Amino acid sequence: VKRAGFPAPLTALIDQLKRLPGIGPRGAERIAVWIARSADARPAALAEALSAVAERVRPCPRCGFFAEPDACAICGDPARAGGPICVVEQATDALAVERSGAFAGSYHVLGGRISPLDGVGPEDLGVPRLLERVREERPPEVILALGSDVEGDATAIYLAQMLAGAGAKVTRLAQGMPAGGGLEHAGELTLQRALGGRREV
Amino acid sequence: VKRAGFPAPLTALIDQLKRLPGIGPRGAERIAVWIARSADARPAALAEALSAVAERVRPCPRCGFFAEPDACAICGDPARAGGPICVVEQATDALAVERSGAFAGSYHVLGGRISPLDGVGPEDLGVPRLLERVREERPPEVILALGSDVEGDATAIYLAQMLAGAGAKVTRLAQGMPAGGGLEHAGELTLQRALGGRREV
Repeated sequence: VKRAGFPAPLTALIDQLKRLPGIGPRGAERIAVWIARSADARPAALAEALSAVAERVRPCPRCGFFAEPDACAICGDPARAGGPICVVEQATDALAVERSGAFAGSYHVLGGRISPLDGVGPEDLGVPRLLERVREERPPEVILALGSDVEGDATAIYLAQMLAGAGAKVTRLAQGMPAGGGLEHAGELTLQRALGGRREV
Repeated sequence: VKRAGFPAPLTALIDQLKRLPGIGPRGAERIAVWIARSADARPAALAEALSAVAERVRPCPRCGFFAEPDACAICGDPARAGGPICVVEQATDALAVERSGAFAGSYHVLGGRISPLDGVGPEDLGVPRLLERVREERPPEVILALGSDVEGDATAIYLAQMLAGAGAKVTRLAQGMPAGGGLEHAGELTLQRALGGRREV
């Protein structure tokens, strides 16, 4: 007797789901069975949403943020024109800055950071495009909103050197204690930097 | 300045992904961004796999296992005809029995088990259909392969009563020590049942 398994369409769906980040073989099976069996599942709606993203969402050619082919919500906003440029690693980092509500300029998404171990060098980050933008748009300030780890530091130092001759003020996010964080949870490096950057009150 | 967020197609995809079992809001964002950005993502292939499952996978009208509209791998196998019927709660339980390689009959998927707390009574499990099958097919044995917890016990006792007059031998899976399990990890109830079912060696 041949052992029975999932029918071919379910096996194909499980294989596709396993490829998604954060979904393992068991999770993929669970989702596929739910899609095949649950009255609440709407596989057609999910399939349409996937197709819409594949067809309509592109990196903005100017800033690299998520954009529909005909419009980037940030580059298309006249209230942001002429403001500072905030340089981030990923489009999702720009979303985090947006949620803070503390920035009203435009973004430049590098798509990564200098990381020799991962084989990412300066030439992979589209830095010439950033330099071109700074020379053309003459922003009052370029804010390097990069991670505060070794690769973020290396990327910031490299970008600051490259931007030195472009005429814009170059700044970096403050480093120190996170909001709501107690001293007992702060790492040594965080406390070093918080002490080094202390301000009179 | 209006804060920017995900473009509409990405928000729609995140909403659909959040509905899947085991995927939370952060996981849904992570998957949607990967689909929009990664060169490895194949959203069209995933959309097609979803549509194929929606269109082609149905519960088998005889046994309730996953089946393509024109064939159930188990009911269509002549080597299984006339064998015992294994009653399981879910189609995935039938897959687990198949993986064991220790059963060569057909299945009957109840679609649940008696659970008053979840509002599932005997009438929700399609028991009349099971009784009809047993009367028509006259299997040599009906094996109740249900969970060994309170609801599994209640469902097994109820089914045994209903099947009493149908002329088939009704059995239940053995309960005892799981393979590879040490005594220190076995629960009290497992040890009670393992002692109660002990066999001479």
